[in-house]
Amino acid sequence: MSEVSTPLPSAFRFAGIVGKLRSEPNRRDIAVIVSDRPCAAAGVFTQNQVCAAPVQVSRTRVNTGGVRGIVICSGNANACTGEQGLRDAERMTALTAEGFGCDASQVLVAGTGVIGRPLPMPILEAAIPQAMKAANADQQSFLNAADAILTTDTVRKTVIRTMPGYTVAGFAKGAAMIGPNLATMLGFLFTDATVAPADLTAILKDAADDSFNCISVEGHTSTNDTVFLLANGIGKPLAGSDLHGFAETIRDCCRELALMIAKDAEGAKHTVTIAVTGTRTDADARRIAKTVAESALVKTAIYGADPNWGRVVSAAGYAGVPFKETELSLTMGTLLLYDRGTPLPFDTVAASRYLRDNREVSFALTFTQGTGRCTFHTCDLTEEYVKLNADYTT
Amino acid sequence: MSEVSTPLPSAFRFAGIVGKLRSEPNRRDIAVIVSDRPCAAAGVFTQNQVCAAPVQVSRTRVNTGGVRGIVICSGNANACTGEQGLRDAERMTALTAEGFGCDASQVLVAGTGVIGRPLPMPILEAAIPQAMKAANADQQSFLNAADAILTTDTVRKTVIRTMPGYTVAGFAKGAAMIGPNLATMLGFLFTDATVAPADLTAILKDAADDSFNCISVEGHTSTNDTVFLLANGIGKPLAGSDLHGFAETIRDCCRELALMIAKDAEGAKHTVTIAVTGTRTDADARRIAKTVAESALVKTAIYGADPNWGRVVSAAGYAGVPFKETELSLTMGTLLLYDRGTPLPFDTVAASRYLRDNREVSFALTFTQGTGRCTFHTCDLTEEYVKLNADYTT
Repeated sequence: MSEVSTPLPSAFRFAGIVGKLRSEPNRRDIAVIVSDRPCAAAGVFTQNQVCAAPVQVSRTRVNTGGVRGIVICSGNANACTGEQGLRDAERMTALTAEGFGCDASQVLVAGTGVIGRPLPMPILEAAIPQAMKAANADQQSFLNAADAILTTDTVRKTVIRTMPGYTVAGFAKGAAMIGPNLATMLGFLFTDATVAPADLTAILKDAADDSFNCISVEGHTSTNDTVFLLANGIGKPLAGSDLHGFAETIRDCCRELALMIAKDAEGAKHTVTIAVTGTRTDADARRIAKTVAESALVKTAIYGADPNWGRVVSAAGYAGVPFKETELSLTMGTLLLYDRGTPLPFDTVAASRYLRDNREVSFALTFTQGTGRCTFHTCDLTEEYVKLNADYTT
Repeated sequence: MSEVSTPLPSAFRFAGIVGKLRSEPNRRDIAVIVSDRPCAAAGVFTQNQVCAAPVQVSRTRVNTGGVRGIVICSGNANACTGEQGLRDAERMTALTAEGFGCDASQVLVAGTGVIGRPLPMPILEAAIPQAMKAANADQQSFLNAADAILTTDTVRKTVIRTMPGYTVAGFAKGAAMIGPNLATMLGFLFTDATVAPADLTAILKDAADDSFNCISVEGHTSTNDTVFLLANGIGKPLAGSDLHGFAETIRDCCRELALMIAKDAEGAKHTVTIAVTGTRTDADARRIAKTVAESALVKTAIYGADPNWGRVVSAAGYAGVPFKETELSLTMGTLLLYDRGTPLPFDTVAASRYLRDNREVSFALTFTQGTGRCTFHTCDLTEEYVKLNADYTT
């Protein structure tokens, strides 16, 4: 979505300003999301043992209730920065809180950028108050905030859904883990619905599992990955089938943002869908899909339009899920290549053309073990990717 | 070792011939290793659920005793080839057995090459008897066999150790998993020592864990990986400290061959050593070393001579091993970059020069949790790698 044509959730304000954290002129790099009312909040965070200071700070605050805002900077991850990093992340929230007279503990924080460098605090001391002054409920401010969190992304990633009684909006950043400098996925969703905090947490976790956790570029888990969902409680309380509908809406929004990230993977020439069905459990399907999605040999073959399907089958084989070859069939696009353990003769020229002529390609791995399933999105591995990632910090 | 200057183990014969399995003229592609006496044998095989027909056939035979030979073809993996593949692998052993009047079940088989294509059996029906006729105990025949198993390797990989009372020799192939077409590691070791089969199996497993299982290029586990160790029992039976010395010799030989493979990784501009120490267990150290070694972001940074050490620390963080940042320090070469959770200022120009000017570079991750350790070898990720792997089968 490049233009917002529908109303935003009530009583949220946004800003995205040029804080001069980044070297490019006129690049927006500081965003704030402000709620006029205290919000129920939920968050999901990176599973990395090495997690950035903003993650450490936000994790302790997200479930305490009464969240009033989020502050985000792009260009510096504030990760692997020790005690100083924690103090700096807390200071960012205090500067934000001063802007509307709440407590610093009511503000969440996120960041993305280079690892291992201290935040340039003098810049932030000036920029955050400026962002708080600029915060506005209009659509341009929403778009500015969505722009300010982008790094190597080539397109803005926003979503909006108007439902009976409430609205959900959100934005995200990420070229998955493929960004040359900024290898992080951030997502922010906000709604004027009224949802109990425990429901909100469960709903966000499920939605993230089915969306942001089903995309991968090269499997390097970031130190900074964060998704927040804020509900400011203006609408009527949701329960029963209304709550179920809300969960579906959040899942849908997360999926839309996740797919935007997968499609925007830098250096990629293909978006690749890996659909695994028929395993014993969903977890087995996910493990196989992720392993195939992260195989450099699979990804280079797709880049080269080489229908070298043995790489797909052999990647499935080392995912750590037991199966017999006779339990597996493989389809590329609509072409059945491997039928319950037996390779089929196929038109290699047509198969190669399928990979060459389509920007979006799919592989289906069909097992005969059960009803487990997972659909995963990834990209190919190109020389451009190597070039982009070979030299950043120096 | 490019020339064999020391005697080979007694009573083994070798051949490596041009069987015309491969399209290049005069390329040796069929090898046999023949023992004049029945051997105790041990094998370690790929852990891939999808394992090639030669692996399936050899796995059932290696521990039954009385092994007389090994037949290997390069250019076709005979993997994902269904029932026909099993029949073809068995036929290869029968053709070998006919060459010296033993039973087919006394012959092991290995292969490497493209996945999912049936073996060209008419070629093998002619070539294997020819190889058996050529089998000889001289050094040139040993080198021919070592050449015949190579695929994308740029150097022959042999090892030989003369010990009091016995000799160990061996050869291997592998550009780790980086070969554009043939993504397999094979190793063959043979000795005239006398070792009980159970000891032989334990010794080979330990040696492989410390060598072939500590190298990685991009972590794509092959369908065909195989290492065999044959002992023909001519020397005096080994026990006690002699047996311990034998185990050390085998480990040493395996490490030498494994390092040759890591150094020969195609497309690579750097050999990278990842040394992890101070974890709770060796298994934890291995998991962290492997995860760092397989991170595309780490590997592209090394290629680009970019001392982006946050990628190393963050890769350690998603290895699945719990630790606190204050328990980890990171050294690149002799440069301490990250000291128990705190980044240190460092000379980025000198750090970049270290990566640019050295073909072999090292990273040491030092934990303060215990005495676990693992040293892992890998390579960088280059545009050349992508190019080589982007188009093979078509």
